[in-house]
Amino acid sequence: MDEPADSRPGDGGLVRLRLELAYDGTGFAGWAVQPAQRTVQGTVEAALTVVLRHPVRLTVAGRTDAGVHATGQVAHADVPVRAWAEHEPQLLRRLAGILPADVRIRAIAAVRSDFDARFGALARRYVYRLSDAPWGNSPLRRHDTVGWPRPVDLDVIRQASAGLLGLHDFGAFCKHRPNASTTRQLQRLDWKREPHGVVVATVQADAFCHHMVRGLVGCLLAVGEGQRPVDWPVSLLGATARCGAIPVAPAHGLTLVEVVYPDDADLATRTRLTRSRR
Amino acid sequence: MDEPADSRPGDGGLVRLRLELAYDGTGFAGWAVQPAQRTVQGTVEAALTVVLRHPVRLTVAGRTDAGVHATGQVAHADVPVRAWAEHEPQLLRRLAGILPADVRIRAIAAVRSDFDARFGALARRYVYRLSDAPWGNSPLRRHDTVGWPRPVDLDVIRQASAGLLGLHDFGAFCKHRPNASTTRQLQRLDWKREPHGVVVATVQADAFCHHMVRGLVGCLLAVGEGQRPVDWPVSLLGATARCGAIPVAPAHGLTLVEVVYPDDADLATRTRLTRSRR
Repeated sequence: MDEPADSRPGDGGLVRLRLELAYDGTGFAGWAVQPAQRTVQGTVEAALTVVLRHPVRLTVAGRTDAGVHATGQVAHADVPVRAWAEHEPQLLRRLAGILPADVRIRAIAAVRSDFDARFGALARRYVYRLSDAPWGNSPLRRHDTVGWPRPVDLDVIRQASAGLLGLHDFGAFCKHRPNASTTRQLQRLDWKREPHGVVVATVQADAFCHHMVRGLVGCLLAVGEGQRPVDWPVSLLGATARCGAIPVAPAHGLTLVEVVYPDDADLATRTRLTRSRR
Repeated sequence: MDEPADSRPGDGGLVRLRLELAYDGTGFAGWAVQPAQRTVQGTVEAALTVVLRHPVRLTVAGRTDAGVHATGQVAHADVPVRAWAEHEPQLLRRLAGILPADVRIRAIAAVRSDFDARFGALARRYVYRLSDAPWGNSPLRRHDTVGWPRPVDLDVIRQASAGLLGLHDFGAFCKHRPNASTTRQLQRLDWKREPHGVVVATVQADAFCHHMVRGLVGCLLAVGEGQRPVDWPVSLLGATARCGAIPVAPAHGLTLVEVVYPDDADLATRTRLTRSRR
């Protein structure tokens, strides 16, 4: 029982696990493992490795930046069938006992081996929270809500947002990666006002390139403050180079709230399609 | 303009201000000023004293304990008319600049001199948040939500709660103060379940004695876990001494969300009545 489960090939090979995660990004240098940094991936992989007694490597739906939070992150990992069978019943409770309080694994389930957390996702949905109240930011939500120093006009922001929906090259809004496309399908970009000066933007796309949500939000807030004309964001669509004039909104207002997957039957098709395009 | 406003008696005496406050209680040793402790009252009085250039003393609706939060705390203070007139336009923004991020003054208004934040209040409403999910507590809400290690049955808790409503001596649930009554009118005590294992209790009374909300919640959670019979809480009503068997629920799940006041016309009457009873 103390031997690593993968040393027993006779026990049936690997099973793919789907994990749902939530974290407060404040104390993490983002999702992805980096040398000598506290990352979500590193922290969660270490906990899983301890509990399952098998080295675990995660593939994630959304590689969030430093300071960005998640309530509905999804990842997958392959672990030995035997380790899963042995530890599954108490796994969530044991992980809760090992993980630090700023990251939780909410659910773990065995899934089809063609489920791919990254390439199988149909859409990612993010929420961006800010408060433009003159008295500042709600103390209990200051970790995931940005205190915005000037009032913003949501009617103007909504007007500017409408033209951004659909399939576009969002290169102007993104930090570029070599040979990576910046064309995305923006499915949702809406704004609502909650009590106490809180503004909540919901942004959904098939996928996001690096810094894209924060670039979109920063750009639209510049419009909402009256610093830029209402047609400025749309005028930036199609540019292939990053636009330096776009302010990137602060990381701690951003939370990944949901990753959408197709039904089981469509999984493999979706993964194949996405892989070929990105 | 640099002289303290109260050095000019000819400028019209004092005006009573009504303040609305929100705070994250995590870093405070409670509301009330204590020697060598960081308290909400001490922090807010110091900021007001700086901005108004006049020593300010607050009277509060609910003296919250160490670790307890507020989104709708109310206090009053008397300040020189001249200081108020001079600083009012930029007061909220200036206070936001001076106060630490874990406490905010959301609103300040001049009110009738017979407004009394403490004795004029008709009711205080608190919310208690916990999560009994096996995976633990939501990372982004862990500061105001208690991770409860065992599942709780809300149906049983609701049954046990119903009998507590109304005018009773809640002495069994409270930390006693000499010569203070522990009879209170419990107006509301309801429980709901939110997504991700979160349980939210709403508790409202004309006023609360010390530790009363946490005593009620702790007692009802013992019932909801099956450790105590459903009629246990009601059986404790009327006791004049504190019941040591009642577990006091942790402070950080508790938030003061609203203080209810009568219309202006009834203010003075209410204050007079309350003063004579407590």
